[in-house]
Amino acid sequence: MHHTSEQPASFTCLGGGHGLYQTLTAARFAGASDINAVVTVADDGGSSGRLRREMDVVPPGDLRMALAALSGEGEDGERWRGTLQHRFGGHGAMAGHALGNLLITGLAEQLGDTQAALDQVAAWTGSAGRVIPVCPRPLDIEADVAGLDDDPRVLRSVRGQVAVATTPGTVRRVRLTPDKPAASPDAVEAILGADVVTIGPGSWFSSVIPHILVPEIAQALNDTDAKVVVILNLTPEAGETHGFTTERHIHVFSQHAPELRVDAFLADDRAATTAGERENIARAAAGLDAAVTFMPLGEQTEDGSASTRHDPEKLAAALKAVHAAR
Amino acid sequence: MHHTSEQPASFTCLGGGHGLYQTLTAARFAGASDINAVVTVADDGGSSGRLRREMDVVPPGDLRMALAALSGEGEDGERWRGTLQHRFGGHGAMAGHALGNLLITGLAEQLGDTQAALDQVAAWTGSAGRVIPVCPRPLDIEADVAGLDDDPRVLRSVRGQVAVATTPGTVRRVRLTPDKPAASPDAVEAILGADVVTIGPGSWFSSVIPHILVPEIAQALNDTDAKVVVILNLTPEAGETHGFTTERHIHVFSQHAPELRVDAFLADDRAATTAGERENIARAAAGLDAAVTFMPLGEQTEDGSASTRHDPEKLAAALKAVHAAR
Repeated sequence: MHHTSEQPASFTCLGGGHGLYQTLTAARFAGASDINAVVTVADDGGSSGRLRREMDVVPPGDLRMALAALSGEGEDGERWRGTLQHRFGGHGAMAGHALGNLLITGLAEQLGDTQAALDQVAAWTGSAGRVIPVCPRPLDIEADVAGLDDDPRVLRSVRGQVAVATTPGTVRRVRLTPDKPAASPDAVEAILGADVVTIGPGSWFSSVIPHILVPEIAQALNDTDAKVVVILNLTPEAGETHGFTTERHIHVFSQHAPELRVDAFLADDRAATTAGERENIARAAAGLDAAVTFMPLGEQTEDGSASTRHDPEKLAAALKAVHAAR
Repeated sequence: MHHTSEQPASFTCLGGGHGLYQTLTAARFAGASDINAVVTVADDGGSSGRLRREMDVVPPGDLRMALAALSGEGEDGERWRGTLQHRFGGHGAMAGHALGNLLITGLAEQLGDTQAALDQVAAWTGSAGRVIPVCPRPLDIEADVAGLDDDPRVLRSVRGQVAVATTPGTVRRVRLTPDKPAASPDAVEAILGADVVTIGPGSWFSSVIPHILVPEIAQALNDTDAKVVVILNLTPEAGETHGFTTERHIHVFSQHAPELRVDAFLADDRAATTAGERENIARAAAGLDAAVTFMPLGEQTEDGSASTRHDPEKLAAALKAVHAAR
């Protein structure tokens, strides 16, 4: 089949949480022919963490968010989106559980297969794409953190997504436990078969970098003919990358996978306003042989202040531009 | 519209639990043009009881069973049936919860309306009918029970569905708390608009008789042009009606609603094998001006022993016969 840049592209989007939600929405707006979400499985907090500890399942929260993002257009899709995202009230054993988490977990238990459960929910919700856990088994992250000791040179090990995301120290490096987990074969295939692969935005150490630490995922990213685009966060997140510049986000990313092939980093044009800043960012990206594209990506806020969320329309335009620039 | 007995009838089925499941399946097999399930809301045990205590909702278990019975034919309906009925494993906070109970409860919380939630699940499952709680608020039952005291004449009050269903004493009478609850308007309408209304089979004191203690339901049963049929249990249930004869089931029923108009009691032909027994049963039914129809209704068991479950095919044939005898 002959592809031109004008044709709808097949997108595979790696990430988790709200960042992935925005990217998947953008991929829909970009008129994707095909969307695959490859989703982090390292969450150990909230409803996901409770279900994970109780039932030894892949934490469903990020999977549910992705399914909600991809739920069909129209009234039924909207109803499904609300249903998946609904959280139980009250003050009892159910309080705070997302209904979609329970549906995914129960269905996976019933069918004996998480992917089959996700595909079933996707079918019911009229999903615009497929949702795939990056690994078929739950993962944990473990971070080396500075600044927790009186001696600032001492690194302490902090374990678990919630602990890493909320540490008052500075995360230097993150590892997976187990350290070389097998990837979901469907995740590898989705990367190999895509026209555009996106990584991020999102919690840098807990839902972006973990993907590239899975050996088969890193290999697939290097083997694919797809354009591989890392979408940078708009602003430093509270917690794990508090105070990190855009440049430092790129440095941290490349430190964790120095051999990775990346075609482009996509940054909000407000992330660097001087030529000097942009040069520093470009130099950081050059370490991975990647270009940096600056485009307007942030949501418009009422008062003109910087938003922490990507605007799916703007992100869609940027992704189409990146794809066309092939 | 001109109706003949050959035309598909509109069925409204009152009850709960497995008994209602079998009756709804029979109504489908009978080629019903329209099915409404009017479902007990007095359960306080198991998954339903936990959700009810935690969230102050109508106990969802009997509603879920009815939705499962009515789930569409074909693969998707089967998948939905399994999903609704699936119970969480493990040993934690979720263990034993039916997935359908959580879906109904969460959706009702989200939409702010139990009936809207049930109608939404019915739409998703390709339901053959509508499921309506008999009352919009949860009910409790309270029973006068003999045989719990040294003096057998002393009646003790036992409260709650589980307590009544498992009492070692003999239930004499059951009441509702609150004692004159408002009915769901949709339940009243479903009774008034039906060609055939069925009551039972099922746990006599906790899922059959409570319906006729709701004043507007009793009134609707007397006002409707539908044929009103009470389907008797095949065998005495363990617990609440242990050792009760068929005749005594009818007596107990009529004691609780002496003014009720019933067209027919439907009994398994093995419930009474001698002319004398049948005469006693007919005499009991005559108190409500009702006929008794004996037909084969029980499931065929491998070893030829008496089954406790109605065979939906046989029950369908019996319901068609009752409708035709109009």
